[in-house]
Amino acid sequence: MDARRLLLTDLYQLTMLEAYWREGFTATAVFELFVRKLPSSRNFLLTAGIEAALDYLESARFTADELDYLARTNRFSAEFLRWLATWRFEGDVDALPEGTLFFPDEPMLRVTAPMPQAQLIETRLVNLLQYPTMVASKAARCVLAAPGRTLVEFGARRAHGAESALSAARAAYLAGFSGTSNVLAGQTWEIPVFGTMAHSYVMAHDEEWRAFVEFARAQPDNVVLLIDTYDVMAGVEEVLRAADVLQRESIAVRAVRLDSGDVGAQARQVRRRLDQAGRSEIGIFASGDLDESRLAELVGEDAPIDGYGVGTKLTTCADAPYLSIVYKLQEYDGIPRRKTSRGKQTWPGAKQIDRITDRSGRWQHDRLALADEPRQGMPLLVPVMRGGRRTNEPESLETVRRRTAEQLDMLPEPWRRLEPAPPFPVQVSDAVQRLAHEVDRRHRHAAPHGPRHTR
Amino acid sequence: MDARRLLLTDLYQLTMLEAYWREGFTATAVFELFVRKLPSSRNFLLTAGIEAALDYLESARFTADELDYLARTNRFSAEFLRWLATWRFEGDVDALPEGTLFFPDEPMLRVTAPMPQAQLIETRLVNLLQYPTMVASKAARCVLAAPGRTLVEFGARRAHGAESALSAARAAYLAGFSGTSNVLAGQTWEIPVFGTMAHSYVMAHDEEWRAFVEFARAQPDNVVLLIDTYDVMAGVEEVLRAADVLQRESIAVRAVRLDSGDVGAQARQVRRRLDQAGRSEIGIFASGDLDESRLAELVGEDAPIDGYGVGTKLTTCADAPYLSIVYKLQEYDGIPRRKTSRGKQTWPGAKQIDRITDRSGRWQHDRLALADEPRQGMPLLVPVMRGGRRTNEPESLETVRRRTAEQLDMLPEPWRRLEPAPPFPVQVSDAVQRLAHEVDRRHRHAAPHGPRHTR
Repeated sequence: MDARRLLLTDLYQLTMLEAYWREGFTATAVFELFVRKLPSSRNFLLTAGIEAALDYLESARFTADELDYLARTNRFSAEFLRWLATWRFEGDVDALPEGTLFFPDEPMLRVTAPMPQAQLIETRLVNLLQYPTMVASKAARCVLAAPGRTLVEFGARRAHGAESALSAARAAYLAGFSGTSNVLAGQTWEIPVFGTMAHSYVMAHDEEWRAFVEFARAQPDNVVLLIDTYDVMAGVEEVLRAADVLQRESIAVRAVRLDSGDVGAQARQVRRRLDQAGRSEIGIFASGDLDESRLAELVGEDAPIDGYGVGTKLTTCADAPYLSIVYKLQEYDGIPRRKTSRGKQTWPGAKQIDRITDRSGRWQHDRLALADEPRQGMPLLVPVMRGGRRTNEPESLETVRRRTAEQLDMLPEPWRRLEPAPPFPVQVSDAVQRLAHEVDRRHRHAAPHGPRHTR
Repeated sequence: MDARRLLLTDLYQLTMLEAYWREGFTATAVFELFVRKLPSSRNFLLTAGIEAALDYLESARFTADELDYLARTNRFSAEFLRWLATWRFEGDVDALPEGTLFFPDEPMLRVTAPMPQAQLIETRLVNLLQYPTMVASKAARCVLAAPGRTLVEFGARRAHGAESALSAARAAYLAGFSGTSNVLAGQTWEIPVFGTMAHSYVMAHDEEWRAFVEFARAQPDNVVLLIDTYDVMAGVEEVLRAADVLQRESIAVRAVRLDSGDVGAQARQVRRRLDQAGRSEIGIFASGDLDESRLAELVGEDAPIDGYGVGTKLTTCADAPYLSIVYKLQEYDGIPRRKTSRGKQTWPGAKQIDRITDRSGRWQHDRLALADEPRQGMPLLVPVMRGGRRTNEPESLETVRRRTAEQLDMLPEPWRRLEPAPPFPVQVSDAVQRLAHEVDRRHRHAAPHGPRHTR
């Protein structure tokens, strides 16, 4: 499937589009994409997915077969479908650079474009930005929980589909992971790729030590041996036997891998046995049911583990598998707009985030202000697209990784802890608040048909 | 991204592959794909994703650019990479037809193929089968919770990527949903597509009733009006005003939509007001934060709601975003295999599931038996691929929907309830248990280097 297909959208985007087209609603709209509320197990979010979103906006077109399908549904006029064939995104986008930490109500992306362009992209834009941001945010928590450790993304198989698997590897890497087991991610973005062996490999051999020796001969530069197929401590003995054989062939065993049970307790036993046998050069790698909490436990108990594979719980964001992420109209035809449904109110107008820091660069608070207010701190949203074209080449992942690391350094306590913290202070500027009141007042005057004014 | 790319895999599949190739381990392997344990909020699983898995197996090849990348990693020998270029899946697959209910430890798919073919596909096969099965299972719970109601899959935007969005729409439909909002799913599988309007459409207009009128004129056959952008009961008055205008143009308002707050309470108020105004023909459609539990509540309180849009919580499987789904070696070169890691033991051998029913067809229990044992009930796994080719044309989604409906009819209490039930009885045949003991005994003899026999 071509991930840029415009039909990957909700039908209502197209029905609204026909209405806008029919009404001539082609004035400029400002939409902002933001998260309403953090999951209880997050103190911050980390931006990812912007590059994929820009790729989509630059290349999205209706294909002939898509237009044929729409015609067959008998829902749309032929003239509208002819117009759809010419649809392009030619708007402006301002966004948080990937690797930027942000908080609820802060726009991570703002679209300024003629209404029919700005509206149609909603479904896929949310879809492209939510998931990488979720994974990057959780991966950053893993990095904070296990500082300096080698962390590898291992979760392709249980990610929700192919795009998810691929995108998770990139998001984890930009958050500070050392690499991924996903080979396609390695090819696509030159992310370092890690791998060991599966239980099935050991099981296919009649003797465990022979499996180890054969594997090492085939992959002499990267010998990591999985020792928990049957019994861990018996597995260590098999490794020691294999290591002796391999040493005569100048092949070194780099590490053993634990993948089940209490890997902390096992690692201590395994470390002791390896050291006792004079094999302190063999490291220990652990995987299996890991997430940031388990990493913090293992690091806290000083488990002798050199690297971790973090899989399913990261790529499915198991403790918070979705965000209250929305794409909301803030202004149309120069007039600010605001939704007031219970519990879903939004701040109107095109906005900017100012980040206010102390002298050391440590963050004090953010300020949600209008885009054209005088700035009170570092503005976080930057121009990334003008007239439907990127303003700059895509950033390298290394640049994004450095930004993430700097941001995580500047994030103060208690937001860098795994434990839930009170909300990071985001002040709403007086101008934004005044605007919200004005919009409400205007709406009350314009809609005299509600029960407040029963005829 | 081409979803059939073989590099969408874990590196260890390729390192093991080189070892197998080098060792000449090309004998036949039997792998089974199954779920170890149900999430606490599931009493059954519903098979989906088989067709996509077969597409993958039929078409998976290494592309030239993939082989170039692998060469650049300097991890693999040139001769091995030349052999990889010829890799094809030419094995046999037996599987549960889509729309089959199944339980833990029961294989949903069995692969019989030369080891290097059977192993390489693991990562993507699990990835292709887990997610649709999860969504179909949760969607089936929604169908059981709201029997006879129109249920529409609405969750593309918060699904984890494009493939997830597309696959969720299909899985929900085969489980008994009436359709989806996802237009690409409509095009791909001719699934009925539903859509209304977004809050932004209402907000772009200065007056709510005018937004309604204009939308209806553009989409006269499908007028569903969203009434909670500002105030629900004021919104109803705007609908009534619009309905009067539209009536003169022979356009009927089909329904109103509620998308926030307590939709049950709101629906009662809205229903009363619509009826009082002589508009009983206007239905009520609800969405927003729905899942099977909320559906059961709304149905239980007899909320006057005609249809439901079920979104984020379904497409992210929010209460159970992954399964303990695994692909395990059961036999290699005619010898049964078994993993014995703590808590991860498997039943060895190529297996079949017999479903034992009473005279009315209602299920009594399942039996996990060897594939070549005499059958004691309806065998559930059927041949779907021989020699790398499908044995039959893909089933139509309508056929799968009928199977699901029949299976849900035959599923007895208490497993059809939303509340957690004790495990469905799955008996393990004597022959399987005997085989497990034999494998354990053989392994103990073959591995005399563990701590039990310290030298």
